[in-house]
Amino acid sequence: MNYANAKLQEEKVFKDPVHRYVHVRDQAIWDLVGTREFQRLRRIRQLGTTYLVFHGAEHSRFNHSLGVYEIVRRIIDDVFKGRPEWDEGERLLVLCAALLHDLGHGPFSHAFENVFETDHEQFTREILLGDTEVNEVLRRVAVDFPEKVAQVIEKTYPNELVVSLISSQIDADRMDYLQRDAYYTGVSYGHFDMERIMRVMRPRANGVVIKESGMHAVEDYIMSRYQMYLQIYFHPVSRSAEVVLNNILKRVKQLRAEGYWFKYDPQHFLPFFEGMVTLEDYLALDESIMLTYFQFWMKEDDAILSDLSRRFVNRKLFQYVNFDPHERREDFEELQRLFTEVGLDPNYYLVHDSTSDLPYDFYKPGHESTKRPIFLLMSDGQLCELSEKSLIVESIAGRIKVDHKIYFPEELLSDSSISQSLITKVKKLLL
Amino acid sequence: MNYANAKLQEEKVFKDPVHRYVHVRDQAIWDLVGTREFQRLRRIRQLGTTYLVFHGAEHSRFNHSLGVYEIVRRIIDDVFKGRPEWDEGERLLVLCAALLHDLGHGPFSHAFENVFETDHEQFTREILLGDTEVNEVLRRVAVDFPEKVAQVIEKTYPNELVVSLISSQIDADRMDYLQRDAYYTGVSYGHFDMERIMRVMRPRANGVVIKESGMHAVEDYIMSRYQMYLQIYFHPVSRSAEVVLNNILKRVKQLRAEGYWFKYDPQHFLPFFEGMVTLEDYLALDESIMLTYFQFWMKEDDAILSDLSRRFVNRKLFQYVNFDPHERREDFEELQRLFTEVGLDPNYYLVHDSTSDLPYDFYKPGHESTKRPIFLLMSDGQLCELSEKSLIVESIAGRIKVDHKIYFPEELLSDSSISQSLITKVKKLLL
Amino acid sequence: MNYANAKLQEEKVFKDPVHRYVHVRDQAIWDLVGTREFQRLRRIRQLGTTYLVFHGAEHSRFNHSLGVYEIVRRIIDDVFKGRPEWDEGERLLVLCAALLHDLGHGPFSHAFENVFETDHEQFTREILLGDTEVNEVLRRVAVDFPEKVAQVIEKTYPNELVVSLISSQIDADRMDYLQRDAYYTGVSYGHFDMERIMRVMRPRANGVVIKESGMHAVEDYIMSRYQMYLQIYFHPVSRSAEVVLNNILKRVKQLRAEGYWFKYDPQHFLPFFEGMVTLEDYLALDESIMLTYFQFWMKEDDAILSDLSRRFVNRKLFQYVNFDPHERREDFEELQRLFTEVGLDPNYYLVHDSTSDLPYDFYKPGHESTKRPIFLLMSDGQLCELSEKSLIVESIAGRIKVDHKIYFPEELLSDSSISQSLITKVKKLLL
Amino acid sequence: MNYANAKLQEEKVFKDPVHRYVHVRDQAIWDLVGTREFQRLRRIRQLGTTYLVFHGAEHSRFNHSLGVYEIVRRIIDDVFKGRPEWDEGERLLVLCAALLHDLGHGPFSHAFENVFETDHEQFTREILLGDTEVNEVLRRVAVDFPEKVAQVIEKTYPNELVVSLISSQIDADRMDYLQRDAYYTGVSYGHFDMERIMRVMRPRANGVVIKESGMHAVEDYIMSRYQMYLQIYFHPVSRSAEVVLNNILKRVKQLRAEGYWFKYDPQHFLPFFEGMVTLEDYLALDESIMLTYFQFWMKEDDAILSDLSRRFVNRKLFQYVNFDPHERREDFEELQRLFTEVGLDPNYYLVHDSTSDLPYDFYKPGHESTKRPIFLLMSDGQLCELSEKSLIVESIAGRIKVDHKIYFPEELLSDSSISQSLITKVKKLLL
Repeated sequence: MNYANAKLQEEKVFKDPVHRYVHVRDQAIWDLVGTREFQRLRRIRQLGTTYLVFHGAEHSRFNHSLGVYEIVRRIIDDVFKGRPEWDEGERLLVLCAALLHDLGHGPFSHAFENVFETDHEQFTREILLGDTEVNEVLRRVAVDFPEKVAQVIEKTYPNELVVSLISSQIDADRMDYLQRDAYYTGVSYGHFDMERIMRVMRPRANGVVIKESGMHAVEDYIMSRYQMYLQIYFHPVSRSAEVVLNNILKRVKQLRAEGYWFKYDPQHFLPFFEGMVTLEDYLALDESIMLTYFQFWMKEDDAILSDLSRRFVNRKLFQYVNFDPHERREDFEELQRLFTEVGLDPNYYLVHDSTSDLPYDFYKPGHESTKRPIFLLMSDGQLCELSEKSLIVESIAGRIKVDHKIYFPEELLSDSSISQSLITKVKKLLL
Repeated sequence: MNYANAKLQEEKVFKDPVHRYVHVRDQAIWDLVGTREFQRLRRIRQLGTTYLVFHGAEHSRFNHSLGVYEIVRRIIDDVFKGRPEWDEGERLLVLCAALLHDLGHGPFSHAFENVFETDHEQFTREILLGDTEVNEVLRRVAVDFPEKVAQVIEKTYPNELVVSLISSQIDADRMDYLQRDAYYTGVSYGHFDMERIMRVMRPRANGVVIKESGMHAVEDYIMSRYQMYLQIYFHPVSRSAEVVLNNILKRVKQLRAEGYWFKYDPQHFLPFFEGMVTLEDYLALDESIMLTYFQFWMKEDDAILSDLSRRFVNRKLFQYVNFDPHERREDFEELQRLFTEVGLDPNYYLVHDSTSDLPYDFYKPGHESTKRPIFLLMSDGQLCELSEKSLIVESIAGRIKVDHKIYFPEELLSDSSISQSLITKVKKLLL
Repeated sequence: MNYANAKLQEEKVFKDPVHRYVHVRDQAIWDLVGTREFQRLRRIRQLGTTYLVFHGAEHSRFNHSLGVYEIVRRIIDDVFKGRPEWDEGERLLVLCAALLHDLGHGPFSHAFENVFETDHEQFTREILLGDTEVNEVLRRVAVDFPEKVAQVIEKTYPNELVVSLISSQIDADRMDYLQRDAYYTGVSYGHFDMERIMRVMRPRANGVVIKESGMHAVEDYIMSRYQMYLQIYFHPVSRSAEVVLNNILKRVKQLRAEGYWFKYDPQHFLPFFEGMVTLEDYLALDESIMLTYFQFWMKEDDAILSDLSRRFVNRKLFQYVNFDPHERREDFEELQRLFTEVGLDPNYYLVHDSTSDLPYDFYKPGHESTKRPIFLLMSDGQLCELSEKSLIVESIAGRIKVDHKIYFPEELLSDSSISQSLITKVKKLLL
Repeated sequence: MNYANAKLQEEKVFKDPVHRYVHVRDQAIWDLVGTREFQRLRRIRQLGTTYLVFHGAEHSRFNHSLGVYEIVRRIIDDVFKGRPEWDEGERLLVLCAALLHDLGHGPFSHAFENVFETDHEQFTREILLGDTEVNEVLRRVAVDFPEKVAQVIEKTYPNELVVSLISSQIDADRMDYLQRDAYYTGVSYGHFDMERIMRVMRPRANGVVIKESGMHAVEDYIMSRYQMYLQIYFHPVSRSAEVVLNNILKRVKQLRAEGYWFKYDPQHFLPFFEGMVTLEDYLALDESIMLTYFQFWMKEDDAILSDLSRRFVNRKLFQYVNFDPHERREDFEELQRLFTEVGLDPNYYLVHDSTSDLPYDFYKPGHESTKRPIFLLMSDGQLCELSEKSLIVESIAGRIKVDHKIYFPEELLSDSSISQSLITKVKKLLL
């Protein structure tokens, strides 16, 4: 038997808190899980800095990747199998794409990509096609198989149905992370009836559609998403950690540009400073190493870098207020002046941060927003976009307001070494 | 109002998946959570290497410490309060001890303590009494308060009731970790009716006792413990990861003793090699840093160190068989010879590991075993040790069998560069 | 100690699947649960005919009543206690009102009240004030206590805060039934974070308000309600059972008016035929007795009564189609003629049924709809009606569409004894 | 296509709180669920009188029967299918047997069978083979199909594997009721990992066996059973309700034998008095009708019957003490004399009740006890009885102690109309 069809002698299972068990029969899937590039995902948290607010959210992307695979496996093996619209020949491809879709994520992706202008999607492609253990496994399936997997993940694969399983408004990716993030944070918002949704999914040439009878389960899923964004992904304290993290990296980059001499050589970051990053450089980074550097940097002489690093490691984050610098431009500039006057560099200590406004696809850090909408399959065989039928979805689609906040160090306001008149001015503008 | 009684203006909560919410009213508790020594527990996993088998088990000791605090808080505020046997004056003390009982744990405690002969309990004391943020907070309560907290944790505090809340056969520590470890691994074994158990707890001078009517809930708790030990804490693959980890550290220590020149200076480990460890040295270590070193060590020239490090980081663990070297001493010695012959140092590649035999207190890495037994409070006011009344507990008390295994690299058995007759000999002895 | 303050020697608990435990300390509450009028609620299902669609929904109003009591108890004992706006002197009153709020419900309330024009709220009052065990217990608290309890339930009690705990848009009644009905039906829609909601409730003179920080938890509760209405309470098959049941009672009433001689004397119904119902008559009815009569009536000579009774008992319900007789008046009249022609009395076999349109208070059988809206307590102390702040609530408030259906016996369409041209005509109009 | 293979056009589902969904594809199964004999199970509670102690336990045998069907369906469709030891030709047979195994249960079976000496297993056979809707459906499969179904349920069918799915120490019947009864009562004891157990089940000629790797999951199941028996099925207050119920029926039978004239003709019971019960008579009884009679009997002139009926309906049950009349024969006889002296007939008011002692098959009312033990399938293919391998199972097998209690009316002890010296004597003997 060829490798593409090779099965394990006996099914293997991973115990998973969200899906109870993740089942593996295919040799290729088993081998991919064992690669060093996939194991690396254990060292990258699914929710970046969120664990500093919801202490349970320490789960890794390894968790999530297995979960996405399992959802896709259930859909195609339990629901699509045997239906004429589903091509069983695409099975292994979509399972691999599901498993590997987040392979290129780096540590604290959002801040990292922001500062160093890297792109995790590009690195996913490089891992799939480069000199890696993952590529070695995929090539055993077929010479062009790595490229196909990359295309599915990049949404350029011609079979749109296959793409839509991984990437649409109701794909396996989202169904996993909503439930998983809810489970680990412990919030009650991530519940929806995934088993029901899977059972009403039907394969169509342009993508997965949902039988009309499942509309309310889908509404519930959309509402879960809405709540998870507002409560977890956009949590203001989590954004505070993100702001501090971002500024650490920004400061390191700035210091390097200025020729600052680091006590501890930031060797892992050198290629990123120079914009000459190899795949090996990229894979050598993970959150353990980042956290190790932060602890080194706590001891650097640069006051800003050591302060920000200490803040992150010991969780002394920034305070925040609602404040839109575009609306209150003069006030903001005055604040910048006042911060400078008390010795705080406003570039690092007076930070504007906003959430984005996206129509029923609430932005999630590291995820793009233009995904195939949800179509209902009516009893007469017609398709109908969800928000046309659902009162709830229609009513919330495109209505999220942008939230503008300013982050700053709280201690400033009670610092007795600063002139009280200055502090009064700051308070008046900020609070 | 003095600090010991200071309350937060408004209660604060932590969202917790196991207890739903952790509630904090006391200023001192809030301040302790904010210290750098307590925040450090975020960087130490509760279950060490278990996440390499149960991928959900990535939760930290920070999680667990808050959980133990919350359980004790509920017992004393909801059940003990107002009962004559309970001295409300001990409230803050026992809450602090609950929160801080694992403060001295280092990264991968079990293997680390085994190789470097450190003692996390000693470090807990040092953190409580030394020049730390924790100590600073505790001293604000009272000058002798840090010492008292240390005594409760060390079980030398005169009020045995206070000690028993943290440390007995049915203490808050165990009730939290059983449920928490079950939650994060996703297994179904850790369920027991904690709410019921808390409601039937009664304070007595010598310790917490359980009203007879709650016996079956306690049986269920004991059975949970039994199952968690067999299925999670003693899982053979988790022990394999532990064996590899242990040997990495052993190798590093050995290389240092031999004067090996490390490419990457193991500065964090130097004090441990020399047995001259300050509190600051100890606190500077966490699992991020350990994982960073393992990745450095993958590139060391020493073949054993780099191989073992790669095995741990990329999760290529050892295989195992049931084998008791004491019973089969000659076979074991023959295996050691054969391993040496094929070029594998048996000190690192042929490892005996066993579980221990403890009467209804199944050993857990990092926890001592001589704890106060469970007493039932009969309707006539008499106390009665649980195993005298419970058929189930009596029947399993002291009956766990020691399990002996040998761990070794699986690849050996299919290594085509080795003489087949040698491999056949090894297989005959091992399998 | 007087009876109003009398406590049980030891707290008693009821094991409850929804709230885990229902706790009782007050002697009066314990005594009320033991009365025959309260025990009678065990013989009346919470969801009437819904168990014929969701087989798990066999739970009684006894269940729910204890649940409402427990929620109120937790709010006032855990959240309100000690706050200046809360008058602890109202505690027992509100607990009793919570426990007894559904006391006057009869068997299959909705259909029964519809046909016999009784009013369960009136009977609640009569039970509280009449010659009953419940009244006897309440009078032991104070002479005017039964009247006060009645007023709270009827929303005429002067202390609006007390009333709002039992009866408002986010009262204990709703919070219990949503969760309870979800639990027993097994649907995933009834989840919301009640613990969070309770913790952000604050007592105000005009009623309970919700701290702004709890808005999202309240949104989730509103969405649960929306989903429960659409999926459970308005389920078309459950409405079919309701239609059949309604017509059984209508037929019995009609036959009695015509002087029909019943084989089995409908003694329990005689007072209802005559509109001279005593409290004793009313209390003598429960769902066991109704189901017993239905089985008697299966053997009556009247073809309509026996057929409908068999349909209900053996669950051969009516089929349905979307059809608004107001919009299609002529078609409906034609159908009535055709039904008559094939020998089916359209009064019993061609039934229009519709759901109602109510602004964010989706009608539930047996519950009134004009309840105090939800107010958010802003950080500046101002109150703000929920739908002004919540995008989701605003968008669904008042938007539920009325759903019109016609129910009829499916067998008609395949009855070979009927002329095919007639059936074709019916089909053309109906399907 | 013939009826045995006929499938529904589209799969139908029942929402089930325990298994989430019950899936039906087979036309025969769908038709069986719709029969009046199967629908009758909605009017018979799964746990008889237990709802008077655990108020959530109001679920019917209809619930449970669907659940057993679903478990068997999952085992054969998801695990056995395709394995050589499993004969797919037995599929429909075992599904029907699973669905119908409790078909002959009457209302409050245990007490009823005890007094009237009926046998629900005999009635199951009669329903399967008699002139019933169920028989009509089964005969459409094959002429001898009803007989085969009866044989599977009666454990006389030659294919022991088929029998063991329904009836063994780890059959679908038990796996359903343990989980279901735990769910509805709300206790935390009924949890075990059924998904895991199903996955390690293997078909063998003599019955289902369990792969050794699943031993701990099976242990957990055995422990659940143990706890459910001790906590739920043997609950002393539930037994009190059973005692009262038993005595009502005993009294009715006795009165009839004495020629007592009933105000309300007990027509449904007449055949049972005379021991001439037709299938129709039997099916005409359900718990609604029983509860209706109890309410009639509350008004009978016979003091014992009316008192006992009131006790049951209004839940004024008997008190109990531990007391073994065999060990304390003279005391018991003295009590009988004293009860007679105060005017209480000891046959109805001084009742001995005991639980039975059965080796790791704790007796459950209505279930026999001699079932095939659990065999583990070792890695070498050998079978091994569970208690030989499992410490826990071995230790509890056959060790349940018989529990003897005496039930009596509590009011007696505080009855001021009775001579205090008499009461003192009673108390001395009883308490």
